[in-house]
Amino acid sequence: MKDKISLAVIRRLPRYYRYLGELLANDIDKISSKELSARMGITASQIRQDLNCFGGFGQQGYGYNVRYLHDEISNILGLQNFYPAIVIGVGNLGTALIQHLNFEKRGFKLVGIFDVKPSLVGLNITGVTVQHIDELEHFFETHRPKIAVLAVPRSEAGPIADRLEALGIEGLWNFSNGDIHLKTEIPVENVHLGDSLMTLCYRINERGK
Amino acid sequence: MKDKISLAVIRRLPRYYRYLGELLANDIDKISSKELSARMGITASQIRQDLNCFGGFGQQGYGYNVRYLHDEISNILGLQNFYPAIVIGVGNLGTALIQHLNFEKRGFKLVGIFDVKPSLVGLNITGVTVQHIDELEHFFETHRPKIAVLAVPRSEAGPIADRLEALGIEGLWNFSNGDIHLKTEIPVENVHLGDSLMTLCYRINERGK
Repeated sequence: MKDKISLAVIRRLPRYYRYLGELLANDIDKISSKELSARMGITASQIRQDLNCFGGFGQQGYGYNVRYLHDEISNILGLQNFYPAIVIGVGNLGTALIQHLNFEKRGFKLVGIFDVKPSLVGLNITGVTVQHIDELEHFFETHRPKIAVLAVPRSEAGPIADRLEALGIEGLWNFSNGDIHLKTEIPVENVHLGDSLMTLCYRINERGK
Repeated sequence: MKDKISLAVIRRLPRYYRYLGELLANDIDKISSKELSARMGITASQIRQDLNCFGGFGQQGYGYNVRYLHDEISNILGLQNFYPAIVIGVGNLGTALIQHLNFEKRGFKLVGIFDVKPSLVGLNITGVTVQHIDELEHFFETHRPKIAVLAVPRSEAGPIADRLEALGIEGLWNFSNGDIHLKTEIPVENVHLGDSLMTLCYRINERGK
């Protein structure tokens, strides 16, 4: 059943996962689609439809078992995989990502950090030591990272992505704002922070009318 | 016509805007929905449907006028507004947002930066001086910022948001990962970076099956 889930539904799962995690943290173990709907700001019918994709964990007139649903979504997303991940670029953004994102709760384990600046080499960030980007090839031989987080300037994203692809990287989380054209079809998640800022501009604009 | 556009369509506009901007940068002044579809990885019919919401800028058998479409989307989003914006919190994330996001191209102008740490006060980031958070009330009297970017720890997001709301802020761009419950219905754009990391985990997982 799983392989028929659309990416649109998949993209909503992390959000369910976050909300269910908060419910668990507040010792709430059952919730109706109606209550969940009110909390998340999406319709109850959308929630039922989404969760039914996985065989439906809710029971009529009873609600969802929060722990079960939370764990199932974790399984579907594969959050227990601890896939090895590396971060390329430790400017402010790369450093912020390393410090604030708990990779281990999101399916990955941070195993390497790389930068081109010699002055950053040797720096320890959350227990991982920054290496020079020239060490990348050697590092792959022993650690086989699955994904790379690209926190490099736009102009460097393309060449680094090509190099990572040649080394056998399996996915990219791209913060560089640059277009990446790869030879293979490995998954790339592009993050464009400015998009939601523009949406905010529109929303403020509309309210002022 | 504008006020009937769904937020789902609005959320796709920044993406069109980015792609059209790249076309302009490459001196491409006409494009068919088919070509745009191939570049953006969304269906041509979706593109036609989205752009028709605004009265349709394309002509059959001719394609879209890139410059015109780019400018119209900019008008719809209100990107020429230069609404005054402030950033709260200049840790790595706040600093990265200030340095890498061109606010002026996205509808805003950065007019103030605040932090709670005395050691950061007086620091100049891209021409704006960091002030102590205690100056917030005074600053509002003279500058009336419309939005605040929250790059503060999760635990501080709620109190800061309440304070900003009382001061009359009109929108929040929230990077704190924390829930914000406001009294009024001002627009809040929550950014959860971890969500796309979890999606990437799923996609890698699926490919490995």
